[in-house]
Amino acid sequence: MVETRRQQIDSVAGALFRERGYAATSVRDIAQRSGIQGASLYAHVASKEDVLWSIVQGAARRFHDAASAVSEHTDLTAADRLRRMIQAHVAVVTDDLGQASVFLHEWRHLSDSRRAAVLAARDTYERRFRQVIEDGQRSGGFATVEAGLVTRAILDALNGICGWYRPDGRSSPTQIADHYAELFIHALKSTPEDPP
Amino acid sequence: MVETRRQQIDSVAGALFRERGYAATSVRDIAQRSGIQGASLYAHVASKEDVLWSIVQGAARRFHDAASAVSEHTDLTAADRLRRMIQAHVAVVTDDLGQASVFLHEWRHLSDSRRAAVLAARDTYERRFRQVIEDGQRSGGFATVEAGLVTRAILDALNGICGWYRPDGRSSPTQIADHYAELFIHALKSTPEDPP
Repeated sequence: MVETRRQQIDSVAGALFRERGYAATSVRDIAQRSGIQGASLYAHVASKEDVLWSIVQGAARRFHDAASAVSEHTDLTAADRLRRMIQAHVAVVTDDLGQASVFLHEWRHLSDSRRAAVLAARDTYERRFRQVIEDGQRSGGFATVEAGLVTRAILDALNGICGWYRPDGRSSPTQIADHYAELFIHALKSTPEDPP
Repeated sequence: MVETRRQQIDSVAGALFRERGYAATSVRDIAQRSGIQGASLYAHVASKEDVLWSIVQGAARRFHDAASAVSEHTDLTAADRLRRMIQAHVAVVTDDLGQASVFLHEWRHLSDSRRAAVLAARDTYERRFRQVIEDGQRSGGFATVEAGLVTRAILDALNGICGWYRPDGRSSPTQIADHYAELFIHALKSTPEDPP
């Protein structure tokens, strides 16, 4: 794929934000690594925060699109939908670790209104997972555990993959996704009664 | 408990690092919020990195001590030891969210040798969890899943609590810990065969 200049800037900035953190990265650093003269970067972006915002929006869209594609399969059982949502999430995380990691950890540096938009998008995304778990509870396959807590456990475990996954490591993204899906589906199916 | 000046500095700095990130916090910020004149802070600490190091060491010690106390109970089943380790971890995380969060997210800003020490300590800690899972697999209670991946899923889920736990929220630390422990123990017990 031919990257536009703008995509290239997001990609370079994403890697820098991930390495050093947003606060410790300057517009000059981004320009230098992109091979752009300092001032000319402003022909492409209005500010450092705009670069962060672009990265965060791109990642949020990929997570959203991946989950939406699964939600359409209303013919599937809740367990199968949860499995596919976990697989889709792991694919987005491992496909671009830099962008996913910046989305997950650096969004706090956005301005108030943008931060609020990110929180709203994350809530919507989290509700999709929770919905599938609650569907599974209604249809009898899943135990009546606290769906909100399980949703958080699943998403935190999936997002944590950002911190340790290596493309040259022992497990492929597909293997990791399948293991995690099995683990959480069995966890949901097996709990025999309400926990204390 | 009466805090020493040094403990107070760690506590104030921990909160600032958590809010703004390490890179965006200055020694002057720490001094100001501690009510200390800028230069006099250096009577207590050698550098900003030393404050981070002190916080990280303190948190690492609390996690280590909590897990060590459980490991001594060799009379317990693997499931009961795992439950207690999860409970101990959640207690450390929720007891001081600021320090735990800085330990988990800001340690990357330490110098190379200190970062290596943190990584070694985290490996040791992770091995304790993995060991309990492998013990459970040998004694027959746990299925033969990939112990390394399950360990990561558990620890990432437990560490993620830092990001959403609120002291005034719906669930107490004990309730969260009990839910998570049940979830993962059932997940481990239920998987009937090796995943694909």
